[in-house]
Amino acid sequence: MMGVTATYFIHDKQHNLIKKAEGIALGLTVGSWTDLPLLEQQQLKKYKGTIISIEELEPDEQADAYLGKPVTRGLVKIHYPSLNFSPDLPAILTTVFGKLSMDGEIKLVDVTFSDDILAAFPGPKFGIDGIRTLVNVHDRPLLMSIFKGVLGRDLSFLKEQLKEQALGGVDLVKDDEILFDNPLTPFTKRITAGKEVLQEIYETQGTKTLYAVNLSGRTFDLREKAKRAVEAGADVLLFNVFAYGLDVLQSLAEDKDITIPIMAHPAVSGALTSSEFYGISTPLLLGKLLRLCGADFSLFPSPYGSVALNRKDALQIAQFLKEPATYKQTFPVPSAGIHPGLVPLLISDFGLDSIINAGGGVHGHPDGAAAGGRSFRAAIDATLQGIPLSQYKDDALQKALYLWGNPSEEVKI
Amino acid sequence: MMGVTATYFIHDKQHNLIKKAEGIALGLTVGSWTDLPLLEQQQLKKYKGTIISIEELEPDEQADAYLGKPVTRGLVKIHYPSLNFSPDLPAILTTVFGKLSMDGEIKLVDVTFSDDILAAFPGPKFGIDGIRTLVNVHDRPLLMSIFKGVLGRDLSFLKEQLKEQALGGVDLVKDDEILFDNPLTPFTKRITAGKEVLQEIYETQGTKTLYAVNLSGRTFDLREKAKRAVEAGADVLLFNVFAYGLDVLQSLAEDKDITIPIMAHPAVSGALTSSEFYGISTPLLLGKLLRLCGADFSLFPSPYGSVALNRKDALQIAQFLKEPATYKQTFPVPSAGIHPGLVPLLISDFGLDSIINAGGGVHGHPDGAAAGGRSFRAAIDATLQGIPLSQYKDDALQKALYLWGNPSEEVKI
Repeated sequence: MMGVTATYFIHDKQHNLIKKAEGIALGLTVGSWTDLPLLEQQQLKKYKGTIISIEELEPDEQADAYLGKPVTRGLVKIHYPSLNFSPDLPAILTTVFGKLSMDGEIKLVDVTFSDDILAAFPGPKFGIDGIRTLVNVHDRPLLMSIFKGVLGRDLSFLKEQLKEQALGGVDLVKDDEILFDNPLTPFTKRITAGKEVLQEIYETQGTKTLYAVNLSGRTFDLREKAKRAVEAGADVLLFNVFAYGLDVLQSLAEDKDITIPIMAHPAVSGALTSSEFYGISTPLLLGKLLRLCGADFSLFPSPYGSVALNRKDALQIAQFLKEPATYKQTFPVPSAGIHPGLVPLLISDFGLDSIINAGGGVHGHPDGAAAGGRSFRAAIDATLQGIPLSQYKDDALQKALYLWGNPSEEVKI
Repeated sequence: MMGVTATYFIHDKQHNLIKKAEGIALGLTVGSWTDLPLLEQQQLKKYKGTIISIEELEPDEQADAYLGKPVTRGLVKIHYPSLNFSPDLPAILTTVFGKLSMDGEIKLVDVTFSDDILAAFPGPKFGIDGIRTLVNVHDRPLLMSIFKGVLGRDLSFLKEQLKEQALGGVDLVKDDEILFDNPLTPFTKRITAGKEVLQEIYETQGTKTLYAVNLSGRTFDLREKAKRAVEAGADVLLFNVFAYGLDVLQSLAEDKDITIPIMAHPAVSGALTSSEFYGISTPLLLGKLLRLCGADFSLFPSPYGSVALNRKDALQIAQFLKEPATYKQTFPVPSAGIHPGLVPLLISDFGLDSIINAGGGVHGHPDGAAAGGRSFRAAIDATLQGIPLSQYKDDALQKALYLWGNPSEEVKI
């Protein structure tokens, strides 16, 4: 069947799932059915939504208590024919979760697409392999760090901070997502200044670091702005996808003149994903849909840091980003509150093809950001060699473990 | 102070609101403060977030039970200086609710803007007065109806349905939001066919009806497509704003060549608004921000229908849409499950400057859609004349009340 199949997690009044599913399958497609003349039924059959499955789940006392009544919980899968929508995400989302998003306790937890629809989406332009080629690192997780405290600072401050980070051996440095185009550090000047710093380090140290600059501003200016960034020599575009729209990301990814990778930041996405009862599941949004629309990197909260995601969802994101598909793979970047002591857990969870990403864990190192970077690189090396962090001879790493702890040797997973 | 002030509804661990507020005010602006040298503090002061107020609310047992621990609930207001972001909604949303949207039980319930930022937003192009001029109706709520069961149907079916609706005396007919551009009823052909039908009715009956066509497709094609619609003679654009982005709406509203009103549909918005703990409040999203970005109409669930919104939020939406401001007013369109018996309640709640909007309540009338329209017009007339619906001599209205009930005479508000 050509079309999309949406899976909904529903809390509804007791024993009503079949009726609810029928209401969705008809209400979001042909409207009514049994009262239609037979001829019209034949004509409309190929537009009609279909119930694929209804799975009743165990009752949940906490949910019942919160909703103030005993409810039936279940997973309902509905298929919508390709004929019903144009092959773009705004049309698909409006079809499967437009009106329905306002209709009681219902969460969109998955969408699967038939090949005719998948063909309309680009996937990542570079993917994991392409990015590894850019940084020439093929045998370990990449390391990324984040500018810190850059609001109100000028270009020389940013250059200094970029240099410190790059000297620590990080593969990527990303802008703070709240640094927009501004008079002190204008977009294009940030790119050229960053290029200068990183080129110098490459020439003197031989290490390659990419800088992800924050693509911001008005939606309809983004493509031209991205092209200007490419012309100015930008390495990677950081993009707050959910402050714009997934379809905007897709157009950036599809544009042949935007010849650099795109890094999707999850800012604002928590407004859609955080509730158990409503919204869109985190793995669908930050995993499957970001990859479909062409993100080369997906940042998401790791299960271990300050802003934590549950481990199951985080693993499912990475699964969606990397599972076999007709698209390239997206780099998983578990983030927020990451310090070197978490590296073995992150590699165990997300594999070699993932990115260790830290802000405070780099800049807050007692010996500065360069030492912070080195401590992470040491933690990665130790993990790949199977050496417990506490036994790895690296001064920067040991200082970091002393400061932030070493949960990988305290927690068994 | 120039900037935006965001109000957050927070459930946090007990007696932690001050710390949480400080974390937000610094974390989303300059990062750190007390450990900065005095000179840097002076330099960064104008970029620093400020706590405007912290209001602790009564504990809520149901929330405590659901979250599995006693929490402190409160409203926290934080001010972010204009200097920190470019004056566009993606930057503002990323600043006030980017990372924060993922950081525990926190909901963005309001944002206020200083005049320098307001000046960057267009507001509605037509507004309530402009739309009243278009339909030449100045003394009553407008009446709108919705196409029904149009997937898989051809142009002649749509024309017939449009005619029936217009004959009933509705002021506006809107596309179903799930009808996208498609081979059976292509976008431009829908416009020209609709125009033909409505022009004929205008010439023969003297009543003016506007048709809102669904603007859909890829984001970067929308402006050109909207201009083509204007050239083809479209009356109004229906737009699924939240499947795209508020900034896209703004650009459509700002475009001088798009010389027709824009009707914002709330599809997908429930994914952002439904939770008590997370996301963005309905009045902020469907009220304040839609008006700011230029919606001439805002559709939202009424407090009375099939997909219901709580009355307080629905009233607050209308308040935001119509309160005095430097912008034009947006027409409130309380929707979903509306039948004639609800008209007195809707007018009492939303005033003369609102739109009665019905799908099933028009098409499901025992004597057909034209009678359905007439029954609503009668209900409006009765209400304005202070006559109880049950006593108003109109056959179509009485049949509708018999079918769907007359809650306005059963409920006291």
